[in-house]
Amino acid sequence: MNALDDVIDSLSRLPGIGKKSATRIAYHLLKNDRSVCLRLADDLSVLHEKIHPCKICGSYAEQEVCPVCSDPLRDRSVICVVEQPKDVQSIEAVREYRGLFHVLGGVIAPLEGIGPDQLRLSELVSRIHTEHISEVILATNPSVEGDTTALYIQKILKNLGVKITRLASGLPVGGDLEYADKLTLARSFRGRSVF
Amino acid sequence: MNALDDVIDSLSRLPGIGKKSATRIAYHLLKNDRSVCLRLADDLSVLHEKIHPCKICGSYAEQEVCPVCSDPLRDRSVICVVEQPKDVQSIEAVREYRGLFHVLGGVIAPLEGIGPDQLRLSELVSRIHTEHISEVILATNPSVEGDTTALYIQKILKNLGVKITRLASGLPVGGDLEYADKLTLARSFRGRSVF
Repeated sequence: MNALDDVIDSLSRLPGIGKKSATRIAYHLLKNDRSVCLRLADDLSVLHEKIHPCKICGSYAEQEVCPVCSDPLRDRSVICVVEQPKDVQSIEAVREYRGLFHVLGGVIAPLEGIGPDQLRLSELVSRIHTEHISEVILATNPSVEGDTTALYIQKILKNLGVKITRLASGLPVGGDLEYADKLTLARSFRGRSVF
Repeated sequence: MNALDDVIDSLSRLPGIGKKSATRIAYHLLKNDRSVCLRLADDLSVLHEKIHPCKICGSYAEQEVCPVCSDPLRDRSVICVVEQPKDVQSIEAVREYRGLFHVLGGVIAPLEGIGPDQLRLSELVSRIHTEHISEVILATNPSVEGDTTALYIQKILKNLGVKITRLASGLPVGGDLEYADKLTLARSFRGRSVF
């Protein structure tokens, strides 16, 4: 096992990268300038050191409090609840939502041994009490686990006097009825709006 | 631009990795144990330091002479000529070929300004003179550039008294006549063998 095999092995453990892609990337790095490879190495070596969960919302940030939580221009009366830090990034990229976030750190998945206690739910409840929140948007994924988790949170929060909403689920824009799966199509009927 | 964006940016410059894959990988690295990330960083940081072209064949190795060139059990009368070091790895993975290699370091591509002088051709000719080679297998890709380069090498070598062969080109195993492109199908006729 030489240094090249080591790189291929390490790269192929990353999500979405198989042995062939890893090999291609390793040879690409060797063929190109040394600085490209060293820059990536440097960036990776400081990643865990510099990036930590925001102590308020739980998404990743270099500071103790993330840019969203510390931005005075955000709407501080709305919290969008998501599963993972990367969901914050996906939503921020759309530039549609201007409120705050709360990262659960996962979903209720009994088969994987993840119960409500492992999620950041007590932090959510205390934020609703202290931060004068008027609406909680449940933005967990439209999957079995995501729906279950949303339902569980709705039950916990329903007596706290906040409006609780769930992201719309239905046909994707640009999609085609023919190719929509049955569950999505059924849900698009249930969630239909007046035109 | 924080440390997380730096990693995403560096990763998305790698071949076959777009912005979405890079983001997914970066969040995966952050979520998982710090040691995975640091091991990849370490492997990358020593890659260029440890791996160099073999001084005989030009493929990558940790030693001055690569394992293939220094293996006494290889057939030292045959040289397989390939474009890139990664082609050596592809051929070695098949375990069909037991001879030596010679890496050109590219193909003749006038549009990209790569002429015969930039390829390791004089090294090939001197190896044929000094190493008692009886056969040269031209294993450049079956592309316009690869075919041109193979033809050029064949012209250079034809008076040196070595047998010159070219890898067979035709229908891929498990393929279907219906989906074969015209050029491949035409070539499978020209290269047909007696059954």
